[in-house]
Amino acid sequence: MVIDAHAHVTAPDSLYVYKAGLLAHRGGHGRGSAGATEHDIIDALNKPVFGGSSHLQQLKEAGTDMQIISTRPYQMMHSEHPKLVTWYIEETNNIIAQQVKLFSKVFRGVCGLPQSTRVPIQNCLPYLERCVKEQGFVGCLLNPDPGECSGVETPALGERYWYPLYEKLVELDIPAHIHSAGCRSERLTYSLHFINEENIAVVSLLSSNVFSDFPTLKIIVSHGGGAIPYQFARFEAGALRHGTERFSEKMRHLYYDTVLYSADALALLFKTVGADRCLFGSNFPIEKLWTGYADLVAAHRAAIASLSEADQEAILSGTARRIYRL
Amino acid sequence: MVIDAHAHVTAPDSLYVYKAGLLAHRGGHGRGSAGATEHDIIDALNKPVFGGSSHLQQLKEAGTDMQIISTRPYQMMHSEHPKLVTWYIEETNNIIAQQVKLFSKVFRGVCGLPQSTRVPIQNCLPYLERCVKEQGFVGCLLNPDPGECSGVETPALGERYWYPLYEKLVELDIPAHIHSAGCRSERLTYSLHFINEENIAVVSLLSSNVFSDFPTLKIIVSHGGGAIPYQFARFEAGALRHGTERFSEKMRHLYYDTVLYSADALALLFKTVGADRCLFGSNFPIEKLWTGYADLVAAHRAAIASLSEADQEAILSGTARRIYRL
Amino acid sequence: MVIDAHAHVTAPDSLYVYKAGLLAHRGGHGRGSAGATEHDIIDALNKPVFGGSSHLQQLKEAGTDMQIISTRPYQMMHSEHPKLVTWYIEETNNIIAQQVKLFSKVFRGVCGLPQSTRVPIQNCLPYLERCVKEQGFVGCLLNPDPGECSGVETPALGERYWYPLYEKLVELDIPAHIHSAGCRSERLTYSLHFINEENIAVVSLLSSNVFSDFPTLKIIVSHGGGAIPYQFARFEAGALRHGTERFSEKMRHLYYDTVLYSADALALLFKTVGADRCLFGSNFPIEKLWTGYADLVAAHRAAIASLSEADQEAILSGTARRIYRL
Amino acid sequence: MVIDAHAHVTAPDSLYVYKAGLLAHRGGHGRGSAGATEHDIIDALNKPVFGGSSHLQQLKEAGTDMQIISTRPYQMMHSEHPKLVTWYIEETNNIIAQQVKLFSKVFRGVCGLPQSTRVPIQNCLPYLERCVKEQGFVGCLLNPDPGECSGVETPALGERYWYPLYEKLVELDIPAHIHSAGCRSERLTYSLHFINEENIAVVSLLSSNVFSDFPTLKIIVSHGGGAIPYQFARFEAGALRHGTERFSEKMRHLYYDTVLYSADALALLFKTVGADRCLFGSNFPIEKLWTGYADLVAAHRAAIASLSEADQEAILSGTARRIYRL
Amino acid sequence: MVIDAHAHVTAPDSLYVYKAGLLAHRGGHGRGSAGATEHDIIDALNKPVFGGSSHLQQLKEAGTDMQIISTRPYQMMHSEHPKLVTWYIEETNNIIAQQVKLFSKVFRGVCGLPQSTRVPIQNCLPYLERCVKEQGFVGCLLNPDPGECSGVETPALGERYWYPLYEKLVELDIPAHIHSAGCRSERLTYSLHFINEENIAVVSLLSSNVFSDFPTLKIIVSHGGGAIPYQFARFEAGALRHGTERFSEKMRHLYYDTVLYSADALALLFKTVGADRCLFGSNFPIEKLWTGYADLVAAHRAAIASLSEADQEAILSGTARRIYRL
Amino acid sequence: MVIDAHAHVTAPDSLYVYKAGLLAHRGGHGRGSAGATEHDIIDALNKPVFGGSSHLQQLKEAGTDMQIISTRPYQMMHSEHPKLVTWYIEETNNIIAQQVKLFSKVFRGVCGLPQSTRVPIQNCLPYLERCVKEQGFVGCLLNPDPGECSGVETPALGERYWYPLYEKLVELDIPAHIHSAGCRSERLTYSLHFINEENIAVVSLLSSNVFSDFPTLKIIVSHGGGAIPYQFARFEAGALRHGTERFSEKMRHLYYDTVLYSADALALLFKTVGADRCLFGSNFPIEKLWTGYADLVAAHRAAIASLSEADQEAILSGTARRIYRL
Repeated sequence: MVIDAHAHVTAPDSLYVYKAGLLAHRGGHGRGSAGATEHDIIDALNKPVFGGSSHLQQLKEAGTDMQIISTRPYQMMHSEHPKLVTWYIEETNNIIAQQVKLFSKVFRGVCGLPQSTRVPIQNCLPYLERCVKEQGFVGCLLNPDPGECSGVETPALGERYWYPLYEKLVELDIPAHIHSAGCRSERLTYSLHFINEENIAVVSLLSSNVFSDFPTLKIIVSHGGGAIPYQFARFEAGALRHGTERFSEKMRHLYYDTVLYSADALALLFKTVGADRCLFGSNFPIEKLWTGYADLVAAHRAAIASLSEADQEAILSGTARRIYRL
Repeated sequence: MVIDAHAHVTAPDSLYVYKAGLLAHRGGHGRGSAGATEHDIIDALNKPVFGGSSHLQQLKEAGTDMQIISTRPYQMMHSEHPKLVTWYIEETNNIIAQQVKLFSKVFRGVCGLPQSTRVPIQNCLPYLERCVKEQGFVGCLLNPDPGECSGVETPALGERYWYPLYEKLVELDIPAHIHSAGCRSERLTYSLHFINEENIAVVSLLSSNVFSDFPTLKIIVSHGGGAIPYQFARFEAGALRHGTERFSEKMRHLYYDTVLYSADALALLFKTVGADRCLFGSNFPIEKLWTGYADLVAAHRAAIASLSEADQEAILSGTARRIYRL
Repeated sequence: MVIDAHAHVTAPDSLYVYKAGLLAHRGGHGRGSAGATEHDIIDALNKPVFGGSSHLQQLKEAGTDMQIISTRPYQMMHSEHPKLVTWYIEETNNIIAQQVKLFSKVFRGVCGLPQSTRVPIQNCLPYLERCVKEQGFVGCLLNPDPGECSGVETPALGERYWYPLYEKLVELDIPAHIHSAGCRSERLTYSLHFINEENIAVVSLLSSNVFSDFPTLKIIVSHGGGAIPYQFARFEAGALRHGTERFSEKMRHLYYDTVLYSADALALLFKTVGADRCLFGSNFPIEKLWTGYADLVAAHRAAIASLSEADQEAILSGTARRIYRL
Repeated sequence: MVIDAHAHVTAPDSLYVYKAGLLAHRGGHGRGSAGATEHDIIDALNKPVFGGSSHLQQLKEAGTDMQIISTRPYQMMHSEHPKLVTWYIEETNNIIAQQVKLFSKVFRGVCGLPQSTRVPIQNCLPYLERCVKEQGFVGCLLNPDPGECSGVETPALGERYWYPLYEKLVELDIPAHIHSAGCRSERLTYSLHFINEENIAVVSLLSSNVFSDFPTLKIIVSHGGGAIPYQFARFEAGALRHGTERFSEKMRHLYYDTVLYSADALALLFKTVGADRCLFGSNFPIEKLWTGYADLVAAHRAAIASLSEADQEAILSGTARRIYRL
Repeated sequence: MVIDAHAHVTAPDSLYVYKAGLLAHRGGHGRGSAGATEHDIIDALNKPVFGGSSHLQQLKEAGTDMQIISTRPYQMMHSEHPKLVTWYIEETNNIIAQQVKLFSKVFRGVCGLPQSTRVPIQNCLPYLERCVKEQGFVGCLLNPDPGECSGVETPALGERYWYPLYEKLVELDIPAHIHSAGCRSERLTYSLHFINEENIAVVSLLSSNVFSDFPTLKIIVSHGGGAIPYQFARFEAGALRHGTERFSEKMRHLYYDTVLYSADALALLFKTVGADRCLFGSNFPIEKLWTGYADLVAAHRAAIASLSEADQEAILSGTARRIYRL
Repeated sequence: MVIDAHAHVTAPDSLYVYKAGLLAHRGGHGRGSAGATEHDIIDALNKPVFGGSSHLQQLKEAGTDMQIISTRPYQMMHSEHPKLVTWYIEETNNIIAQQVKLFSKVFRGVCGLPQSTRVPIQNCLPYLERCVKEQGFVGCLLNPDPGECSGVETPALGERYWYPLYEKLVELDIPAHIHSAGCRSERLTYSLHFINEENIAVVSLLSSNVFSDFPTLKIIVSHGGGAIPYQFARFEAGALRHGTERFSEKMRHLYYDTVLYSADALALLFKTVGADRCLFGSNFPIEKLWTGYADLVAAHRAAIASLSEADQEAILSGTARRIYRL
């Protein structure tokens, strides 16, 4: 069985027309709606997407049994006015929820949160609870930088600022998937910002008391953990000198998806954090996915072929099933 | 003959999907394109729009012979990064140019300019020239507040800051249509901002030397001139005391469209500035156009029915034909 | 009977010498006082002012029976340090109170409030209460933009931010007269800022729940309501589509003074909001008042001569008597 | 003979009414004028001022033969918009020039400069030249902090920023009198700011190359040089260790007025900088001058009675006559 | 007996290496420590310092019996991150405490406080209490400008902002020694900033109710009180006119050290505030101390030789013993 | 032969005492000097450093033949005032130059540049030239973020902003070693900032025209290239789709040091970029170097033992010799 644990929604165009409108009238037209009918939603999943055939068709071609779909991170505009963020993210989540309902064998939903530097994280929690309890979402995205490189900073993930969210995650028994959104700096693209934020997230979490304070907290780091599985030894020194838990051991408090697209990188990831902490992810559908989804899945299978069967199973579905309780 | 001198483009959805993408990746995916094919463009004009039938169909129903279409102001996002502004506005203008080419009997184009508070107005001029000479545009929009209420101010239209643009307008012999875009303040909507900016524009222009320095400059003020035809007497005092040209006389240096939707307001406009300075405009298509385009045109005809035939002709087409050289 | 419901205080020069001093020493000399004696105050009203004879003499010449005088708005400097604002406005109000006391048949006072973006509106309320109960003021000015175009924004008048003031106004049963003060932007003068703020005020109030939450609240909008009686039809669309109360009907929740100086504009105002919602106002004494107060009053009488007697009476005194309880 | 080298203009009230107006309309009414007639100016000098009789009368009572009058520093508002600064200071200088013309035996004028942090010091120079050549001013005030404690800083007086002014002073052969203006900080009053700025001015000038680059430059420091004649020894160390010119010697490059009001402080001043570098000054008329001008002058005479006649003469008139070329 | 009441710690180099490190890693290496062993501390006091022989040796040469040592003000970096400030100041205080313990006949300690504009003054109080009760400090420094000229202002010392500190000082019965730290402005050095802040401190305290609210509060002003003993007469006027306590009398609420280096300045200080309010201070060890400590002490003795024996004793030790309870 | 191409200077303590002083007096004491004598410099290299024996001794123990030493990056304080930056970096470079001169068989120097966001990069070039031509430096550090996470951004390394530096590097035929300095954000340590900046640097350079415009430019990326050798496949997509040069091929335009401390990470690095693009580096001496320098070098030798002899030689010395022309 294959579960793709890092994929994003294929929404009708009207969602982005809606977003362009929000950013233009800034709420002056009222909330309105993305106006996506059931028909539009089904249609969107059956039209060609980046790389060839339709979203649903590509899943079949690749042999993916289930896909966990979330909001498109770089569209989430967390640094905009909280009202607009909330409206847009709720509309997106609604479309995801509807896709999951319509195709309940294929999809599971991970919701976006209306995070903003202007409102405390607590404000997102009632909504998160509704997403899980009323709309059936199995996890949420977690953006460690809702300021989106605007210069307005949010405490790093190891800080107590985030504890209300961690409490709620533990209470709901769902994982959070770390994934930043846009980036307003002209020095780097959002894509590189993802990696840099993953570095900050991993080091901040593992240098803090978060996992002793929340031993059952489940956090997944996108894109194979950014730089850290490659750079981890830099962070070993302190523990070696002080005789405390090694950083490389602490890395096993986290989960990592396999969105790396390179067999060598994957091998390093598995060796460093353990295959049992990893979940297959594709990042599908993205414009840049170069060789088509089926090829990507095949390449991924090949890259893990030398692992034990148990490890392969864990990566391809077992860990996802366990932490998402699928 | 009826010429609707204030109308906006009905573009394919892909333009707004493109815009949402630009604001998300901030240039990281490169310029790309709105990807609107000839087919999409024709399709957009034949699909139902706000208020009933299709754009083209409504023109027919209303008996409008020609429509001057421009970019949708509130979508122009002048306060964003200049690169994004330029890309988006060029894509929009390209769609307008293509519509005009495809339906050359019905449409004429007024282009948006990639104005920004971060680049001098001079930077827009070569592009404006290409719009007119290569793409056949007959005028341009002029946003007096490219900062979009962000707190970054641009000199008012009477200041020398704008002289390079006025020189180019005179050289190209085209009018500029004053129309602000978005508004980032939470105190007012873009819609009210239009009116307030029109007030500032009219008073600044008429208190300056612009029309003695550029006697052939053609400026159209949107929405019946904001508050000024109603509030003009407030500005008469200085001239009365100093024996200089009265403000009410100076108001005739400008042109005004008739986007007011009220017979009483129109009557005041004509009485104050003279019917010969007015051009019929509908603001079509806008979501809020309450009774349908045909009704609106009919109501407009009724509202001017008591004017002389010459005045009616001037408003409905004559002035537009003259200043746009149609 | 003629009541001039929009007029300002003619204060002794020492008030402005006092203000210049405050802005220079910024409180270093202590509060001090404007040092206006009863003699100075009587003198000020009997010296020539803008446009000819003395304040008192002009009232007589024009046949005005009573005048409601308030602080000079553009001198109110709300964006300065709250301590200075408070001192200056209290000194001004004291002079007004003394004029009213000295000439109790002729004058009634409308007090300025020491509004500031740096202190909550609540802070002004005990003082407002004292003004009414101890000094006999019959209303207050309300500046919707105490930031005075400085970039520090205050919520628009429809927001709950203002509810404490509205509660107090209702409790005291007095009207507030909307009138902004200075404007620090170089794009527009305070005079145009008045109009633009009136636009924002009217639209914000009428788009909110203020008048359903405070059905007995009395708000007067200066200068004939800014642009709105001319532009109102733009705001009808929403209600027409949704079947809710029309904007043009809602406009009758407010009162409007007649400071417009144009018979045509006045006619539009009366037709749009109803003559019974209007109060005669002159803006006297202002430097720019071109033809003298008596001429202005005569012109105003001529402009309303074609209305019913009841309407004329309402405009000239009735509505003022009713809402100010004179 | 007694020359009072530090005194300020007694202007008609209309100057401050004018200033209050400028700060209210911010230029919207145009430049206008303080409207001070010859009659007003003569009147102002013959009305009671702080401390008893009239300005002219007090001079007579005290036996002062000549007084050098300048703009009132704390009213100069250098941190306001440059346009307003220029208008106000020119109006003030005009009143001074007229007083000097009317009472040419009694008064000499020191002009204020329209300094601003927003315009380079060069911009003031043509006007300074006109003041001297056309209006007969014999020196100028120099504000080392035109930002007025607003947080916008100007380079200290030893920096090359000020060289264009020094060149012009040398060319015109006039002294500059250091005197800061207002202070926007809430931590200190303008009065203390004067002293602190004098400290910065003296130390910056004497630590720089200004007096070797401009050997004939004449600079007078107000208020007995701030703290420096008392604190000078703190600054001796460097020179003592490096064998360079001692700070106490360098202090003689400057001139100091005697606005100290204490015999002991005066004695220290004379001992430290030499009586020949000092000019009698009263700061008249100021509200705080406690015992009347005649008493102050008498006390000053007493305080210097033990000096040599030559020193007394230098202080009371000689140095002023020499450097102002009276 | 001679007590030097204004002197600073001679710390091992490792303290400044530690500081450079803190400012580089900004806490990333953890708090660590200055790593000064008892040996290092003894060594630092026996190595040559500015001006010749060792700290301890110079005391002997000069005949100083006891020295009150505090943190080096200009190194205190109050405007940095509060965490770094706290760490650095605690390390410095620890070194002082250790010196005092090791040389308990010679030294007494005055601690620095971890003041910051980002934390309320209350936060320093538990630490101050520990310094006094556990580490034996006899007083503390008080920086009136922890923003260090950065533009972030702290209320002046007469404001209620400081009352919690004054309460604690009274409760612990210890004096505070006013001494500002660094200065980020490019207009003046920290050295001049000391003087300017002393001016603000003295005037603010004496214009406030602090000494009527805290009659037993003991405040020492550094460097002979800045400019005030020289400029005090400027501040007499108000009291003279209002019949309230004279400023010159109020000056005796404070204590002043004699760090002036000039016999004339000292004489003025004693005459103005009274010798009994003065404490001998050297500022030792500072780089700029020109003639060596022994010379300085000898010069100081000479400068006070003409005073009464009681006054000499008060200055040299009596007042220090009394207010520090030595 | 073993060349350690990433190591930092072991300077006398006085350098950091000097730095602490600069940051305290901010230039008020003048430039002064770190005051490091030849004796101090030799002493510093022979005293124990982090991890055991002395700098020189450890080199011997480890069998390192030559070490390329540069300024300690995290101490470089590029975001401070340019004057302080310049002084501090020049002092540091002088110490490096002296060490190289004294131990010319063992050391080569890489200089720091006085980069600042407040001065254009051009300003550093004459100094760089002197470093190379007069002091014998063989390369320079290049900080891609002189703003040090302060929010003041510098264009990424692919922008034309940096071309003047690239021209000079090519002209002098020396490599630049990318290494950021401090980080003022509280979200991450300087250590993580190094990695994030390397990511931005590599992607920006390889997405630009820099290497086609400067084919002989030599750039070394610290710490094994940050995240990129692990994450590179993410960046392959564009080229694969467009048929342009693959990102993985472009990565060979750069050089990478081997400061990774993990055999697995090193293996990935060599496989991804080629062993011939790699230079051995230790980061010595750093506090966190856990097992001592000799162990580290031994571990590094072991980690590369399975490579070809040519590759081993290239890594250990060949590439360094070639690009540094040793």
